[in-house]
Amino acid sequence: MNDLFLNALRCSNNGRPPIWIMRQAGRYLPEYRAMRQKFSFLEMCHQPELVAEITQMPISLLGYDAAILFSDILVIPEALNLGLRFEEKIGPIIERPLCSSHDVESLPIINIGEKLNYVAEAIKLVKPSLKVPLLGFCGAPFTVASYMIEGGSTRDFKKTKQWMLRDPKSFHKLLTKIADHSITYLKMQKAAGVDAVQIFDSWAHVLGHTQFREFSLHYLKYIKDALEEIPLILYCRGSSVFATQLAELAPAGISLDWQADITKMRQTISSKIALQGNLDPDILYADPATIRSEARQMLKGMQGDRGYIFNLGHGIHPDTPVDAVRTLIDCVKES
Amino acid sequence: MNDLFLNALRCSNNGRPPIWIMRQAGRYLPEYRAMRQKFSFLEMCHQPELVAEITQMPISLLGYDAAILFSDILVIPEALNLGLRFEEKIGPIIERPLCSSHDVESLPIINIGEKLNYVAEAIKLVKPSLKVPLLGFCGAPFTVASYMIEGGSTRDFKKTKQWMLRDPKSFHKLLTKIADHSITYLKMQKAAGVDAVQIFDSWAHVLGHTQFREFSLHYLKYIKDALEEIPLILYCRGSSVFATQLAELAPAGISLDWQADITKMRQTISSKIALQGNLDPDILYADPATIRSEARQMLKGMQGDRGYIFNLGHGIHPDTPVDAVRTLIDCVKES
Repeated sequence: MNDLFLNALRCSNNGRPPIWIMRQAGRYLPEYRAMRQKFSFLEMCHQPELVAEITQMPISLLGYDAAILFSDILVIPEALNLGLRFEEKIGPIIERPLCSSHDVESLPIINIGEKLNYVAEAIKLVKPSLKVPLLGFCGAPFTVASYMIEGGSTRDFKKTKQWMLRDPKSFHKLLTKIADHSITYLKMQKAAGVDAVQIFDSWAHVLGHTQFREFSLHYLKYIKDALEEIPLILYCRGSSVFATQLAELAPAGISLDWQADITKMRQTISSKIALQGNLDPDILYADPATIRSEARQMLKGMQGDRGYIFNLGHGIHPDTPVDAVRTLIDCVKES
Repeated sequence: MNDLFLNALRCSNNGRPPIWIMRQAGRYLPEYRAMRQKFSFLEMCHQPELVAEITQMPISLLGYDAAILFSDILVIPEALNLGLRFEEKIGPIIERPLCSSHDVESLPIINIGEKLNYVAEAIKLVKPSLKVPLLGFCGAPFTVASYMIEGGSTRDFKKTKQWMLRDPKSFHKLLTKIADHSITYLKMQKAAGVDAVQIFDSWAHVLGHTQFREFSLHYLKYIKDALEEIPLILYCRGSSVFATQLAELAPAGISLDWQADITKMRQTISSKIALQGNLDPDILYADPATIRSEARQMLKGMQGDRGYIFNLGHGIHPDTPVDAVRTLIDCVKES
């Protein structure tokens, strides 16, 4: 068992930094694209055998130091019967988005463990064969709520933010419902075998700091407190700004987006909290020399840090050349 | 003459904080929308009489403490003959975007002062009648370059960032050309009568900190050094992260986007640099009580700060209710 990732997450890694990358089981891999010819994205998420195979795929092919469950942050809205599909070049579509406080009240009462049991099955299938730790995950309540309200991706999050500001009471009710499901879901993942979990607040950067505290951080704390001993990594887009607020929750790790200087950030974040990140995913479009020089600069800055986990600052782009990823992994492993 | 704004920009304001807001002469004003029925956006930018009238409009109607020249950051690409038009609900379109280093080499040699003389004429027209200071502006080289390459608005800035990473040499050449024109243009604005200038790096937040330093900050410094005594405010989306880098340039002011806590930011930014911002524009969708409470929280945090200029963290949205803006202005003026 390769323990670099879990050691770093405990801030007690004496070896080189571990590396995994967000969306490492994804479209940049030709082997993944070949599977997508045969199955839709949701079919792949729903079938435990396929989830297990895809979760393992980037580990076997590229030698990352941690696996992350192949799934999507929108399986909770799907379980809530809002209708989920993925459109080529558009992204996720929630077919029946929430339009009013009445829609929040009317969300079905469900047993999330039963509805998402296929995820537990997948974890049980893949875990025994993995030689690296397995990370589970879910979306943060604010981000999941924004998809449930907007009905898909958006640039301005206008519906979400207008709802949040004009009817904070029902918005809080929605966030609480999502948070409760997330707790059950993450505990189920842990019981099935994941070693740690990460929460993705992919849209937190649209919030100012007071709204971040009220509508995002509050629920991250609510989930964190309920998870007790399960090691938790918090990722936000916006974590370059909000990292000190996230650190108040004392999670096992904070995953930084690509804006901040992670070395400087370490000066303000306790050495008891692992720091994960934060290379700009676009750097992987550059030539190998540039990729190496950017990665080495980061590795040098974090040298000797026992709680450093190398990652990108956001998910890898589908059109990233696999050779660029190989260059990056080699560079980290040589360090 | 209302000197609150210029005093605050000199960090020597003993009165209440001044307020102006980005895009204050814009579509949220019914009087502006009425003019847009008669003229296209570019016609309005090109005719000095109209520019003067629209620049004055929000001051007369709402009583802001500073005027900002009505114009657009893309007048430089337009002067460079790349073709500029604005499409309803889409935004700016550059008709002949740059596709290669050859296109950068082939940019016409122009006299920007002649090409943009209509701006100087507008400044000379409006300045004598204004009872508040007048702010000139231009786009930052990185942001203007990204429009010239992408051909319009974009979510991922893929063409720009790939060019920047794969051919930094020609990207730097482009940035230098834009910076040189910006210097001439801002000096011309000053000579025509503006009291201070602001540079808008609206897309800087797509950069990580090392690329921000190399491809944005370097050119902001280049412009700042050339402007000598002209008071300069630097605005970036991303300034919540990059403010300490911006502060290295010792500009007159830094304008913060809406993410950071401006009160905490003041602890790391010299009291010799004015801080401008940073209410989330979406707050203006809320009810009056929420707008007041959010504004008062910010005003309380910055109380007694002699270099504080109240503003939003980004441009005001076109669908903002004017009454919400009145509530905000009242709140600042009562403080």
